[in-house]
Amino acid sequence: MLNPFFKNHGPFKISEILKFLNLKLDNLKKDNDIKDIKDLQSSSSSDLTFFHSKKYKDIAKETKASFCLTTEMLKSELPKSCIPIVVDNVLVSTSKITSIFYPNAINDDFDDTVIPIKDSNFKEKVKYGKNVLIGKNVLIGSDCKIGHNTIIEKNVVIGDKCAIGSNNIIRNTHIKNCVKILDNCVIGKHGFGFFPIKNNNIRYPHIGIVLIEDNCEIGCGSTIDRGSMSNTVIGKNTYLDNQIHIAHNVKIGENTIIAGQVGIAGSSIIGKNVKIGGQAGISGHLKIGNNVEIGGGSGVIRNIADNSKVMGYPAKNLREFLRDNNK
Amino acid sequence: MLNPFFKNHGPFKISEILKFLNLKLDNLKKDNDIKDIKDLQSSSSSDLTFFHSKKYKDIAKETKASFCLTTEMLKSELPKSCIPIVVDNVLVSTSKITSIFYPNAINDDFDDTVIPIKDSNFKEKVKYGKNVLIGKNVLIGSDCKIGHNTIIEKNVVIGDKCAIGSNNIIRNTHIKNCVKILDNCVIGKHGFGFFPIKNNNIRYPHIGIVLIEDNCEIGCGSTIDRGSMSNTVIGKNTYLDNQIHIAHNVKIGENTIIAGQVGIAGSSIIGKNVKIGGQAGISGHLKIGNNVEIGGGSGVIRNIADNSKVMGYPAKNLREFLRDNNK
Amino acid sequence: MLNPFFKNHGPFKISEILKFLNLKLDNLKKDNDIKDIKDLQSSSSSDLTFFHSKKYKDIAKETKASFCLTTEMLKSELPKSCIPIVVDNVLVSTSKITSIFYPNAINDDFDDTVIPIKDSNFKEKVKYGKNVLIGKNVLIGSDCKIGHNTIIEKNVVIGDKCAIGSNNIIRNTHIKNCVKILDNCVIGKHGFGFFPIKNNNIRYPHIGIVLIEDNCEIGCGSTIDRGSMSNTVIGKNTYLDNQIHIAHNVKIGENTIIAGQVGIAGSSIIGKNVKIGGQAGISGHLKIGNNVEIGGGSGVIRNIADNSKVMGYPAKNLREFLRDNNK
Repeated sequence: MLNPFFKNHGPFKISEILKFLNLKLDNLKKDNDIKDIKDLQSSSSSDLTFFHSKKYKDIAKETKASFCLTTEMLKSELPKSCIPIVVDNVLVSTSKITSIFYPNAINDDFDDTVIPIKDSNFKEKVKYGKNVLIGKNVLIGSDCKIGHNTIIEKNVVIGDKCAIGSNNIIRNTHIKNCVKILDNCVIGKHGFGFFPIKNNNIRYPHIGIVLIEDNCEIGCGSTIDRGSMSNTVIGKNTYLDNQIHIAHNVKIGENTIIAGQVGIAGSSIIGKNVKIGGQAGISGHLKIGNNVEIGGGSGVIRNIADNSKVMGYPAKNLREFLRDNNK
Repeated sequence: MLNPFFKNHGPFKISEILKFLNLKLDNLKKDNDIKDIKDLQSSSSSDLTFFHSKKYKDIAKETKASFCLTTEMLKSELPKSCIPIVVDNVLVSTSKITSIFYPNAINDDFDDTVIPIKDSNFKEKVKYGKNVLIGKNVLIGSDCKIGHNTIIEKNVVIGDKCAIGSNNIIRNTHIKNCVKILDNCVIGKHGFGFFPIKNNNIRYPHIGIVLIEDNCEIGCGSTIDRGSMSNTVIGKNTYLDNQIHIAHNVKIGENTIIAGQVGIAGSSIIGKNVKIGGQAGISGHLKIGNNVEIGGGSGVIRNIADNSKVMGYPAKNLREFLRDNNK
Repeated sequence: MLNPFFKNHGPFKISEILKFLNLKLDNLKKDNDIKDIKDLQSSSSSDLTFFHSKKYKDIAKETKASFCLTTEMLKSELPKSCIPIVVDNVLVSTSKITSIFYPNAINDDFDDTVIPIKDSNFKEKVKYGKNVLIGKNVLIGSDCKIGHNTIIEKNVVIGDKCAIGSNNIIRNTHIKNCVKILDNCVIGKHGFGFFPIKNNNIRYPHIGIVLIEDNCEIGCGSTIDRGSMSNTVIGKNTYLDNQIHIAHNVKIGENTIIAGQVGIAGSSIIGKNVKIGGQAGISGHLKIGNNVEIGGGSGVIRNIADNSKVMGYPAKNLREFLRDNNK
């Protein structure tokens, strides 16, 4: 995954990590340097990984990580090269450790590094409105416009010929060329991802970004959250109408058209040339194929194959929907 | 009900109130002072009440109010101690009288009392962004942040360790400790409550507030309306995702999780430990129990018992929904 | 149609128009002046029209236009007085030509003509908040209020006694008297209308405006798009709750009440005295009669006759909906 914006504060000694979790390991021979925290598959021998559900046991057997946050029940599935660190709640511990490596990926308080654009290096290059603010670590290409009261917070790259409207807030986002973002959008905030803990939920880190490809348009009042462990992606020439919500880790293909008030829940993958009617909702972790048409108001709760037309709640074949409702 | 913000402009003489309604009472012996306008149950002998529907007749019989706005049909249900004031439309008259007692509870025009935070007493205490405005009658605890362009209008109390994002507008709201409000929210405006009158609807007063308890999080682009005759309440450690709408008088319990684009209509009561999926809608005046799970996209139009799992439109038992849709 | 804001940059010589389309006409006798581009019915002999679908052939036979963008298949339906201009894609060519006549009707980049209201002629007349901006070609009546950070962009007429809240963006809009617009709305932007072209969609011009009649109220976070070839209209004393989306060309009658999060797709016509429950959606190009009641959460995909009560997805007779869901 691209992670251009969140600095890894590691490496940490495994002893520091254990201390942070209030744990000790008897079988610790040397105090390894841990470079990063990654999933079972991506980890190398210098990383820490996590294993919280039986359904990943085949991947777990092959992990190259040297250490793994896991449970008493699951630890036997790990290879000998990987030392289990048994914890009560794997995901909460994973979240805590990720927050040590990426402390800036949890906190989405307002960006206090911003300065008025007229005091920045962009004052000559960009055509801008009143009260525009620019944060640290921002790049803007040629021939761009930024409307009134818009806040480009830290960690934003904008390509050439982009038109950003007014009252937007953008952070942790890579916008390519010829993109239009209308007004009142919030793009790049952390997603709605946290571990529910009685009286004090724990937010997990979001180290992904929002990536908006060439020629896209984003309608007024939309929200696009950045990814947690991967990016949120809007493909080339994809158009979003007003008041749309795109949750974290969602990936949308190119040439897709999404009408007003649609919501797409976390980690779903939408194909290319897809059309989604107004107010449709798509549940999380689904795969919607290419050339799919989803009728307005639909509630999609299952994967949808390429070239399908669906409608309804739950969404089903369009012909079936129309037949069932014409009796 | 807590009503810390709306000043009661009473008492008024009963003769003043009658004059305002263009009415006379023949049986008026002395010109009483009326201290407040309250519902049948809460009224004391110095208050005016209202009685507009047969279904409240048992409560009406017991009211302690000295005067009651009511109809020719209903007046005989009142006790002898309560003098009926017969009007054409009880609710419209109630609204008019409430607006005399609480004139500031109707008008939600922009707050012209605000000043830049840098000119206020909070300039040392609060960490704030650009263009932050602060109205009259605002209190802010220690260790708080307020983002760019946010307007804290009049009548707002904020506890300790709160992080308010950018572009928010907040009024008539009590925010407790460790609350996060992300960006672009409008909190504490009057609800969508009015009497539909041809060519000129009459808005009724909203003397309630929004109360947000400890450790809550409110997502981007959400709107939470203040209550009319009671408060709108978000319970402890309850998390709201983006683009959520909470109408007036809604009460949400603690540890509840509400996903993106959900809407909850006026006066509904949601229990604790409830989970509501994205785009679900809950009709007004319903009671949703504790530990309830409501599937994404559901339309809830009936009360739901504790510990239920529901889905569909109208929402029904989750197993039934899945069975009906797998045939 | 009222089109007070978009200046017609014509007339253009027919030769210029052909050149723009990379076309030649063999049978061109003289180089006519073309004053405007209009639909088949409205065109006069000095206009260019377009004819893209068989279903308009009866109107096509009667058109008074001298030239018509059309296809090889359809051209024989035109009267002799009308010279066909055969193109590959009629709608795309129509869009291109409209953009020559009305170049400002495509580009909705932020308005760089705005100035702070305190530097405008309105500084004495209007009661205004902080950071209010006013564009060119704006008129504001007496006794109006405009809240903080609101941007009245170019081409806006506001009547008397209007209260505009904070953080709004308004352009190409005519607001009559006694209208309230709450906060965070975007009104008058172009609609979600474009021709989907692989890798580079073409937006078509929106030369209509938004017209908001007397005594309306528009809730927080709502978006109302202006019309493409006609206006978007909100009738007298119609109230919209929060987070509502009204697409281009929609017309809503008077005394209508629309609850939170409703969406109305392009070109639908809603009658007067209509009530629409929260989160309902109405498809495009429909006609909803007078005195209709639409239940919350409904998805309306067919026309609805006067005085009907409907609910469901797809919406059907309310009694039928309740019966079907009580079995």
